[in-house]
Amino acid sequence: MPIIECIPNVSEGRRPEVVESIAAAIRSVEGVRLLDYSSDPSHNRSVFTMAGDAAPLKAAVLAMFEQAVAAIDLRAHTGEHPRLGAVDVVPFVPIEGVTMEACVALAKDVAQEVAARFAVPIYLYEDASSNPARKNLEDIRRGEFEGLAARMATPDWAPDFGPAAPHPSAGATVIGARMPLIAYNINLATDRLDVAKKIAAAIRHSSGGFRYVKAAGFKLEDRGIVQVSMNLTNYEKTPIFRVFETVKREAERYGVSILESEIVGLVPAAALNAAAEFYLQIGGFKADQVLENKLRTEN
Amino acid sequence: MPIIECIPNVSEGRRPEVVESIAAAIRSVEGVRLLDYSSDPSHNRSVFTMAGDAAPLKAAVLAMFEQAVAAIDLRAHTGEHPRLGAVDVVPFVPIEGVTMEACVALAKDVAQEVAARFAVPIYLYEDASSNPARKNLEDIRRGEFEGLAARMATPDWAPDFGPAAPHPSAGATVIGARMPLIAYNINLATDRLDVAKKIAAAIRHSSGGFRYVKAAGFKLEDRGIVQVSMNLTNYEKTPIFRVFETVKREAERYGVSILESEIVGLVPAAALNAAAEFYLQIGGFKADQVLENKLRTEN
Repeated sequence: MPIIECIPNVSEGRRPEVVESIAAAIRSVEGVRLLDYSSDPSHNRSVFTMAGDAAPLKAAVLAMFEQAVAAIDLRAHTGEHPRLGAVDVVPFVPIEGVTMEACVALAKDVAQEVAARFAVPIYLYEDASSNPARKNLEDIRRGEFEGLAARMATPDWAPDFGPAAPHPSAGATVIGARMPLIAYNINLATDRLDVAKKIAAAIRHSSGGFRYVKAAGFKLEDRGIVQVSMNLTNYEKTPIFRVFETVKREAERYGVSILESEIVGLVPAAALNAAAEFYLQIGGFKADQVLENKLRTEN
Repeated sequence: MPIIECIPNVSEGRRPEVVESIAAAIRSVEGVRLLDYSSDPSHNRSVFTMAGDAAPLKAAVLAMFEQAVAAIDLRAHTGEHPRLGAVDVVPFVPIEGVTMEACVALAKDVAQEVAARFAVPIYLYEDASSNPARKNLEDIRRGEFEGLAARMATPDWAPDFGPAAPHPSAGATVIGARMPLIAYNINLATDRLDVAKKIAAAIRHSSGGFRYVKAAGFKLEDRGIVQVSMNLTNYEKTPIFRVFETVKREAERYGVSILESEIVGLVPAAALNAAAEFYLQIGGFKADQVLENKLRTEN
């Protein structure tokens, strides 16, 4: 059975009863597994992680909207994290036995239904977007809920689905499809922040580096070392091992070595397998050679 | 649900109807998946690969014995591969959510039942063996079916279960538990067979190398290169990356580089993940950070 991951971000992180009602709505849908959810009160935002096939995920997102639109009023919402709507962002991520195209189709299907049922305008993003100015979440969310009405009045910002003006209390929602994100950090055996910052600049897309890398340099004060902190937004096109080897080589330039790297949260098996294939120089490897995959697919 | 793999080797590779009757017997057991089976006529031997939890696997092995003991007579059996019995070897291999101890217990349970129902003497091997002289399959099988009656008459060779003499037509069976085998080859960018042979000798257990490596050097005539061909018998204790790095370093001694490596057949995900962890210097990695594992285990 295909597995799609969906990670809705909702603009409520302070009222547990609202967060719980949304979790309950997701759990009530058969065929969807709610893997995780957590709230950040200072961001006033909650992130839900669920997985399933297309039809149950669609039902779960609609059930979630029903709760969120009824309970959340952006006019009274404050928090550190930028947001446009009560349900702020809904990404669909292909995990197993499903193509990106299928996730794009699902995103559009859900967007249309949400717009029709809740009168919330929808912007499509990432792989679901066909407008280069509206691919990036940060670009779409600029000006936030407070600037949304003025922005939607300009010709470039007609939504992809739904009404031409914001929902009074629920704003607008960004829905789309993207590759799994990998949060990946490399710790350097030095306390020189300038080295971490220079390496981050060398590898990140925005300053000339790899296309699917976002990176910044940080100091880990308690450990007296520095870190290159990254988001890898497409591990197939910019694989972990290439980023690691480049960071290692750039660090050598300063006489600095790598202490360790860390994967924060989840990583797709294929991203790790690609590293094993690269370093072990494995030729002609196929995913169904992984014993567990074989056991799961064959009958 | 726990997954155990079982790979019975049966002394019949020339009569398809017998092989099919055994496959059908395995398939008839609910909860067991027959993943693969293949016959080698020159070895006159067939290998079946199945997976499931303990109870269904036990039922499948018993069903298989019923067919094999009725159809195969070792007194009339010829073939290149050494063998002791109609059902020659039955290894149980822990794959997921199951310990080696549980596989050892299953091996003993199946051994006892087979001995009782079919009057076939059973030798326990590998992790199921408590006798150092009877751990290794090659040691137990020395002298083959033809020498079995004489050998069983000696005090050291009383079986672990069952009668003190061979079954007249079905001989004896070796049953046990072991780690998954990885068949791993490294191709060298040279046609010098002596280099492959020296490297094989350096890394294999029998001549002073790594404990869980069997290795030999071969010429790949059609490609004009040589190969270090290996079986890794415990990838947790002798990991792939350590073997690869050692072969690479030994090859450098002769000015030879590695062309590529290859994994023949199946490999456990954990063996590949360990390589990724090593080369990327990933600290504190846990198996449940692999997205697919998380998706499968949580609810």
